[in-house]
Amino acid sequence: MPHPLDEAIGLTPTGTNTYSGATHPAYANMVGPFGGVTTAVLLNAALLHPSRLGDPIALTVNFAGPVADGPFDVEAVPVRTNRSTQHWTLLLKQGDVVCTSGSAVFAVRRDTWSDQEAVAPRDMPPVDSLARLQSDLLPPWVRCYDMRFPPGEEPFRFDEQAQQNSNTRLWVRDEPPRPLDFAGLAAICDNFFPRIFDRRHRPVPVGTVTLTAYLHADAGMLAAQGSRHVLGTARALHYRNGYFDQSAEIWGDDGCLLASTHQMVYYRA
Amino acid sequence: MPHPLDEAIGLTPTGTNTYSGATHPAYANMVGPFGGVTTAVLLNAALLHPSRLGDPIALTVNFAGPVADGPFDVEAVPVRTNRSTQHWTLLLKQGDVVCTSGSAVFAVRRDTWSDQEAVAPRDMPPVDSLARLQSDLLPPWVRCYDMRFPPGEEPFRFDEQAQQNSNTRLWVRDEPPRPLDFAGLAAICDNFFPRIFDRRHRPVPVGTVTLTAYLHADAGMLAAQGSRHVLGTARALHYRNGYFDQSAEIWGDDGCLLASTHQMVYYRA
Repeated sequence: MPHPLDEAIGLTPTGTNTYSGATHPAYANMVGPFGGVTTAVLLNAALLHPSRLGDPIALTVNFAGPVADGPFDVEAVPVRTNRSTQHWTLLLKQGDVVCTSGSAVFAVRRDTWSDQEAVAPRDMPPVDSLARLQSDLLPPWVRCYDMRFPPGEEPFRFDEQAQQNSNTRLWVRDEPPRPLDFAGLAAICDNFFPRIFDRRHRPVPVGTVTLTAYLHADAGMLAAQGSRHVLGTARALHYRNGYFDQSAEIWGDDGCLLASTHQMVYYRA
Repeated sequence: MPHPLDEAIGLTPTGTNTYSGATHPAYANMVGPFGGVTTAVLLNAALLHPSRLGDPIALTVNFAGPVADGPFDVEAVPVRTNRSTQHWTLLLKQGDVVCTSGSAVFAVRRDTWSDQEAVAPRDMPPVDSLARLQSDLLPPWVRCYDMRFPPGEEPFRFDEQAQQNSNTRLWVRDEPPRPLDFAGLAAICDNFFPRIFDRRHRPVPVGTVTLTAYLHADAGMLAAQGSRHVLGTARALHYRNGYFDQSAEIWGDDGCLLASTHQMVYYRA
C-alpha cells in the first residue's frame, strides 16, 4: 500500500513539462487541499522530471486561489539549467484557471566547509513525554501528521487571552510514519498553524498567500532522520492590515537544521 | 534629473505584458548588475502594469544566470486577480535566455487589527555617530547607498578571525537620498553583504540564487520614512555544502518593520 502522501502527490506525465494529478481526501483542509501537499505536488513535478539536475534547495509557492476537489494539471518548466543549478517555474491549473504558481531552484551540492549557525532549542521536552494533538475536530490533513506540542504551546487555545508573541514548537512526523524525503519535508514546511491564532488566542479567517522553503538537508541527512519526529519552531514578525508573515525552522532530532521556511498569510481580524 | 535608481529600473512597454529596459552602470556589481536593482526592475514591471491591483506584499526573484551589460526584456503576467489579491509571474530575458525569474503578490490592504511582534534593536548607535562605509574599492552599486555600520559589524573584515555568528546591523539609504517607495525598498532587501564574509572573515566566491521579500509597509509608512536611513539587521542559519540562507529585516527609524527578506546564496569555500 502506498503512503497517503505518495498517493496525494502522485503525478502522471501528459507531455514534455506537464502532468495530471488529483486532490486526495486525506489531505483536505477547510477549503481545498492542505497547502503543504500542494507545495509537495509542485515540487514533485520537478523531482520527477527527466531533465532534473541535483536536488531542491529552494521553493516558492503562491496560493493564487483555491484548488477544487478533483483533478488538476501541473506544469514544471526548467527555464534555465546551469552547471550546478537549475531554475524551474511551476504552475497548478484547473482548466484554464491558475490555482497555484511557483518556482524552484535545484542544485548539485559539493562537499565543502559547512557550518550551522542556528541552534535548535535545548529545552524541548522529549517526543515520548508529550501527547499527540487531538485532531478529531480539525480538518482531515491534520490527522496525516503526529504533532506533539509542549504544555502552553498547543494550537487553538481560543480563550481570548492574547499573548505577547507567537513562538511555538512541536514535534511532528507523517502519520502513518514515512521516511523523510524532499517532498515530505516541503509539506511539513506548511505544518505550522497560523501565528495569529497563537498571538490572539482567537479564531479568525486566514489563508497562506505565498510560501518559501529553503531545504538545507541533502539526501543523506534526510535518510539519517528516517521517519522519526522532526522538531519545528515558528514565530511571526508583523501583522499589518490583512497580512502577516511567519517563519519557521525544521530541525532533525540530532539538532541539525533541515529546512527554514517563510510565508505571508492573509487574515481578517 | 531623475534619480539613478529610477533610471536603472525604468521600463518601456513593448506589448501587453512586456517591457524593455537596460542595465545601468551606476548599479553594476562584480558580474552584471546588483541583484537588488534586478529585483526592483522585476517589481517595477508589475507596479507599472495597467492591470495592477493594490500594492506589493511579497516578491520572489530567482537569479538564474548573469545579466549581461546592455538591454533586456521583462515579462510581467498577472496570472490571477482576485478581489483583494493579484498574483504575478515575472521574467527577465536577454534574447531567448532567461536571466531572472520570479513572482509577486499584490494586495489591497484594509484597516484592521495590526501588531508588530518583532522589536527593532534598541542599542543601535545613531546614524550621525557612525561613518559612511568607504566604497572606493567596492563594486559601483555600493556607492549608490549610504551605509553606516556600528563598530565591530563592518563588512569585509578579512582578517581570517572567524566569528561565532554573522549578525550585523547597518543604517542605509539611497545615495543621493531618494524617498522610499516599494521599488527602493525591494532593492534595499538585497543590500546585505553575504553572511559568510561576516562569519568567516575571509573572501569567497558567492552569488545569490533566490531572494524573497515580504513588504510589510504600505504607501503611508513609506512616505513617513521619506529619504532618511532605514535600519537593517541580518543573520544566517545554515551554511551547507555550497549554499547558505540569510534573513534580514528592514526597520523604519521609528522602529516599525518595513520589510523582512530571505535568500539562498551559493558559496565556494
